[in-house]
Amino acid sequence: MSSSPKSTSKEQDSLTKRTEIPQSHPRAKSLRIREKLIQHFKSGVVASAGLIAHGRGEAFDYLLGEKTTQPALKAIEAAAATLLTAKHPVISVNGNAVALASKEIVELSKITKAKIEVNLFHRSFEREMTIKKVLEEAGATEVLGIGEAASARIPEVGSERRRVDPKGIPIADVVLVPLEDGDRTEALVRMGKKVIAIDLNPLSRTAQFAAITIVDNVVRAIPTLTEIVGKLKTKNKKKLEDIASTFDNKKNLGKAIDLIHRRLSKLAEKGVYLPILEVDEP
Amino acid sequence: MSSSPKSTSKEQDSLTKRTEIPQSHPRAKSLRIREKLIQHFKSGVVASAGLIAHGRGEAFDYLLGEKTTQPALKAIEAAAATLLTAKHPVISVNGNAVALASKEIVELSKITKAKIEVNLFHRSFEREMTIKKVLEEAGATEVLGIGEAASARIPEVGSERRRVDPKGIPIADVVLVPLEDGDRTEALVRMGKKVIAIDLNPLSRTAQFAAITIVDNVVRAIPTLTEIVGKLKTKNKKKLEDIASTFDNKKNLGKAIDLIHRRLSKLAEKGVYLPILEVDEP
Repeated sequence: MSSSPKSTSKEQDSLTKRTEIPQSHPRAKSLRIREKLIQHFKSGVVASAGLIAHGRGEAFDYLLGEKTTQPALKAIEAAAATLLTAKHPVISVNGNAVALASKEIVELSKITKAKIEVNLFHRSFEREMTIKKVLEEAGATEVLGIGEAASARIPEVGSERRRVDPKGIPIADVVLVPLEDGDRTEALVRMGKKVIAIDLNPLSRTAQFAAITIVDNVVRAIPTLTEIVGKLKTKNKKKLEDIASTFDNKKNLGKAIDLIHRRLSKLAEKGVYLPILEVDEP
Repeated sequence: MSSSPKSTSKEQDSLTKRTEIPQSHPRAKSLRIREKLIQHFKSGVVASAGLIAHGRGEAFDYLLGEKTTQPALKAIEAAAATLLTAKHPVISVNGNAVALASKEIVELSKITKAKIEVNLFHRSFEREMTIKKVLEEAGATEVLGIGEAASARIPEVGSERRRVDPKGIPIADVVLVPLEDGDRTEALVRMGKKVIAIDLNPLSRTAQFAAITIVDNVVRAIPTLTEIVGKLKTKNKKKLEDIASTFDNKKNLGKAIDLIHRRLSKLAEKGVYLPILEVDEP
C-alpha cells in the first residue's frame, strides 16, 4: 500500500480494494505481489495460513535482496535439465503458487509437458474448483487432483496434502513443488520421486530434502525456469543428464545461506537499515 | 497445526477452528501464537495485512532462535528505566499487539502508569471498538484513540496511523510501540518523542530510528519488561537515568544482527536445517 491519506476511516481493511501503487515506489514489485495474494485470499484461492506463509517468504526474500541469486540460477539450470529428461514430470501447486504465478505455471507445464496437480493443505472442493478455474483462465487444459480425482494417498503424510491424483504424483518421476511443506517433501523423496523445490528459506526441511532447491521467489523463479528450459531444449540427452548429475544441492544451499550471511554482515558493519519491510505494517 | 489426519475435506480453512496442539509438539508455542492471531483475525482485531506481517515476524524470530536474546534483555532494561522515569508514557498498540498480548500490555500499563492508545493502519470504528473490548476484558480501565477521540494528527504520516488522541501521544514524552511501522516511528522521533520499539527485524527502519529497540517477540518481551520494571521500581531516579543514558541502541542492534549472522554461519557450516518454519505451510 502507498502511504497516501485515505478519504474515509470506515474501511475495515483497505487491502481488500485495488490500490494504486506508483511505478516509482521502491517496493512497487513486492507490494504488487502482496496485493495479488490478498485478492486471491478474498477469492478463496489463498488460505489465511497462506498469508502468514507469504510473510515468512517476504522476510527471506528481503534477506536475499529480492533478486534471483547466482545459486538460484544454478539450481534453475539443473531443474530445467531434470524436467527435460523426466518421463512423467508433475508440477504440484497450492493456493499461494496459483495466486502468484498461474500463467507462469501453465507456461512451464506446456514447455516441459508436465502435468499440473492441485494439492492443498486446507482442502475443500469449492477451493479446489476456484483454483482450477484460475489455472484454466491462465491457459491450463488439464488440472489434476480436483475433488474425487485425488483418490490416492502419499504414505505418512498427515495433512490433506497427502491426497494425490493417480494420474499425477503416483506415476511421476520428477515433481516440482513451489512452496512446499517439509513433511510432504520428505515423503515424496521416500517414494523415490526427484523433488525440485522452490523455497525462499534455504534452511527449511523442504530445502534440505529436495534433490534440487531453487532458493528464490516463485514469481521470479518460474519464468526464469521456463526461459532456461527453452534454451536447453535443443541439447541432447547426454548433455542434459550431465547438467543434472553434476549439480550439488547441499553445496548450492550452502552458497545461498552464505549470501544472506554476507549481506547481514555488511549491513551490521555499516549500521544501515533495510527499509523494505516497512511498508504497510499494520 | 498438528499434522493429524482430518476427518473431512469440506473445511474451507481448518485454521478457523480451535486446534489441539500437543504440549510435546516442538513448535507448540509458536503454533499457539499463530492460532491466537488467526482467531483475532476472525474477530476483526487483526487485519489481513497483519497476518502477512506476523509471517515476517515468524521468520525473524526463527532466525533469532525464538528466545529473548542478551541484546534484547539489555534493551528491555533500558526500556524499563526509561518508562519509570517518563512523565507521560504511552503504549501505542495495533491489532496484532492486542491479539497477541492484551493482558501483558494492560499489566505493563498498570505498573508503569502508561496510557494505552489504539493506533491502526487499517482503521474503522468497528475494529477500534473490538480492540477496545479485548483490552477492557484484559483489565484496561482507559483506552485512548477510539473513534472521534483520535482527533489529533501526527505530521507527515500518510496512513490512518497518524490519527492520535490528544490525551495520549501528543503530550507523551515516551512512546512504547510494539510492532511499529517505519514512517510513524520516524515521525514520532521528529516530534521529540523517545520511542521504544519492539521489532523482530533488527534491520528495519523502526528498529534503526527508535531510541531503544527490543529485538524480540512481543509475547516474550512485554512480560519480561513488566518483570524488569518491577525490579527497578525501587531504584532512585539517578540510577534509572544512568541505565537509560548508557544504553547504546546502534551498538545493541549490531549485536542482534550479529547473533542472526553467527547462527546462520554455524548452520551453513553444519549443513543442518531448521525445521521450525515447516509446520502448517499451506
